[in-house]
Amino acid sequence: MKTYSIARSRRIRSTPYTSRIEKQGVTAYTTYNHMLLPAAFGSLEDAYHHLKENVQVWDVAGERQVEISGKDSGKLVQLMTCRDLSKSKVGRCYYCPIIDDKAGLINDPVILKLGEERWWISIADSDVILFAKGLAIGNKFDVKIFEPNVDILAVQGPKSFKLMEKIFGKKITEMKFFGFDYFEFSGANHLIARSGWSKQGGYEIYVENTKSGLALYDKLFEVGKEFNIKPGCPNLIERIESALLSYGNDMDNDDNPLECGLDKYVNLETEVNFLGKEKLKEIIKMGINRKLMGVIIDAKEISVSKSIDLIDDKNLKIGELRSGVYSPHFKKVIGIAMLEKPYYEVSQTFKISINDSTFEGKVCDLPFI
Amino acid sequence: MKTYSIARSRRIRSTPYTSRIEKQGVTAYTTYNHMLLPAAFGSLEDAYHHLKENVQVWDVAGERQVEISGKDSGKLVQLMTCRDLSKSKVGRCYYCPIIDDKAGLINDPVILKLGEERWWISIADSDVILFAKGLAIGNKFDVKIFEPNVDILAVQGPKSFKLMEKIFGKKITEMKFFGFDYFEFSGANHLIARSGWSKQGGYEIYVENTKSGLALYDKLFEVGKEFNIKPGCPNLIERIESALLSYGNDMDNDDNPLECGLDKYVNLETEVNFLGKEKLKEIIKMGINRKLMGVIIDAKEISVSKSIDLIDDKNLKIGELRSGVYSPHFKKVIGIAMLEKPYYEVSQTFKISINDSTFEGKVCDLPFI
Repeated sequence: MKTYSIARSRRIRSTPYTSRIEKQGVTAYTTYNHMLLPAAFGSLEDAYHHLKENVQVWDVAGERQVEISGKDSGKLVQLMTCRDLSKSKVGRCYYCPIIDDKAGLINDPVILKLGEERWWISIADSDVILFAKGLAIGNKFDVKIFEPNVDILAVQGPKSFKLMEKIFGKKITEMKFFGFDYFEFSGANHLIARSGWSKQGGYEIYVENTKSGLALYDKLFEVGKEFNIKPGCPNLIERIESALLSYGNDMDNDDNPLECGLDKYVNLETEVNFLGKEKLKEIIKMGINRKLMGVIIDAKEISVSKSIDLIDDKNLKIGELRSGVYSPHFKKVIGIAMLEKPYYEVSQTFKISINDSTFEGKVCDLPFI
Repeated sequence: MKTYSIARSRRIRSTPYTSRIEKQGVTAYTTYNHMLLPAAFGSLEDAYHHLKENVQVWDVAGERQVEISGKDSGKLVQLMTCRDLSKSKVGRCYYCPIIDDKAGLINDPVILKLGEERWWISIADSDVILFAKGLAIGNKFDVKIFEPNVDILAVQGPKSFKLMEKIFGKKITEMKFFGFDYFEFSGANHLIARSGWSKQGGYEIYVENTKSGLALYDKLFEVGKEFNIKPGCPNLIERIESALLSYGNDMDNDDNPLECGLDKYVNLETEVNFLGKEKLKEIIKMGINRKLMGVIIDAKEISVSKSIDLIDDKNLKIGELRSGVYSPHFKKVIGIAMLEKPYYEVSQTFKISINDSTFEGKVCDLPFI
């Protein structure tokens, strides 16, 4: 497949780590929240195997923060998500679908509770800050909303624990999943969470002090030599196998969280007030009409740049593939697809056209592994 | 300068024209409103000369529409912009800075008044739809807000008038600048405006019927042969020479419209209610502290991927370059820069470092040509 270069400009911001990853061999970018996000360092498959066995450092500065603080900050944050945050604790991360009044997804961030009246919304690719500002202004909420100078470094892979222990000490290995705390390095305190967009384990370092963060970047590679460290980025194969959903790819504003299998983050039996609550109750009453499922396709390669129809024996469209990749584990193409009712059952078969050839596929549960 | 490829996915949507422009030789993309926007067809300079003398068709589907309709639509649209729209007319386009309650820019769209209670906001690169939804929900406005299926084709260049006349007849040449009307082609009515992101003249076709739009795309190239038509895209040289500001490049949420020279779109002496009105009055009272200006630099090349400091003889930062390009017309680098007070005067000199060499530059008025 022919490749095209990415044009550079201030509008698609570089990150503090861009010059480093370019020296380290980044080969492709995507954009994320108006910023460069590395998308490949050579072979996707090599990076997949490396990630599952070693440790990688990812420049994921594109995962921007929306900081909301002030007297009404809790009210505003709760208004935006269908997950009940009334019992949320300072020092914890919460995966939260953000939806509008029609229950359409707007983002699926991790929300960090920094204080009783201070939150970071660590966003997927859409301008949540504009939604928050609009709601705050319209509701006359007493809040401050801005994008702080935070550029996340993710440290991912099974050897990330040993590596981070060498730099930050034993305490960092005792942190629970989706917990966060502050750790000192080179004259600055860094918020570090046990989180990240892979299922191989690891951390996300919320770098506010750029100078210290760059020193930490170099330190990770220096200490990481013995763990076979490499620069990396979110890996399409690993994230699909693990069913880590991607906003904009697998779901968007035309989908609701129930269609996307996010039921456990939809808390309707609570007193808290959030947008789309009545709409979600209606949807549950009527039942959903489609569902995000896994698919396995008897093909050896695929490149998804838009939805691809899934059709049945009668050439009827029964769903659409939204993400897909060749999995070296399954030796087939795997993907994430939105299937229409009643076709979203496991083992449902379909046909799909890839590069003008037709292939057979089957619906399955998520995650794959 | 090394180039990097752009990774493809559903999150960065293709346009209906993507397969055509790839056959026609697009070489680079950027992204715009979560969509692919062509950024080069080979040489930037060749495209610049061609655009100034002939006619080009641009795939600018990334310029998405936010449709706002309903009883309170006028109130919501006015709330978002500091330009007085109380005398706006159906069938006209309006360039409108969108600002928040702190007078920070959120976008600088062209707003089309489709009916007394129906508007399209033709946006630059930020999710204005989320701001509009937040404001509408918070204010309990009676409006419908969605992104319609509109994929703009721009026809730009001095020969665009002759070309469009051949396809749509004499009437289209009589349309005034920033007017729009409906024109039939291949079974569909297309909204066509006399507008576009160049100063070389031309039209924007708001394609809603994709099938007819694709037929029109092919027709433009067929009829356009005699006018030396080529596929193209917004041209960095032409747009900087003409001082067409780019949101995200030349200005962003940290800037207000008065700093960006958009004074004539700031209407404070009216009764209409919009966000940031009091803040803008305050700013006018205190005076602005910096201003967007043109700069000319004694250099032969530049690539701007983030702000570059402008310094004075004492190594004091007096401003920052935000966009820049080598201009074959001036035989120098020209650019758009934010200059601090009191350095934003014409003929102010500065130094700038480009690829580790230092160059001399001078502040000038916009536009260049």
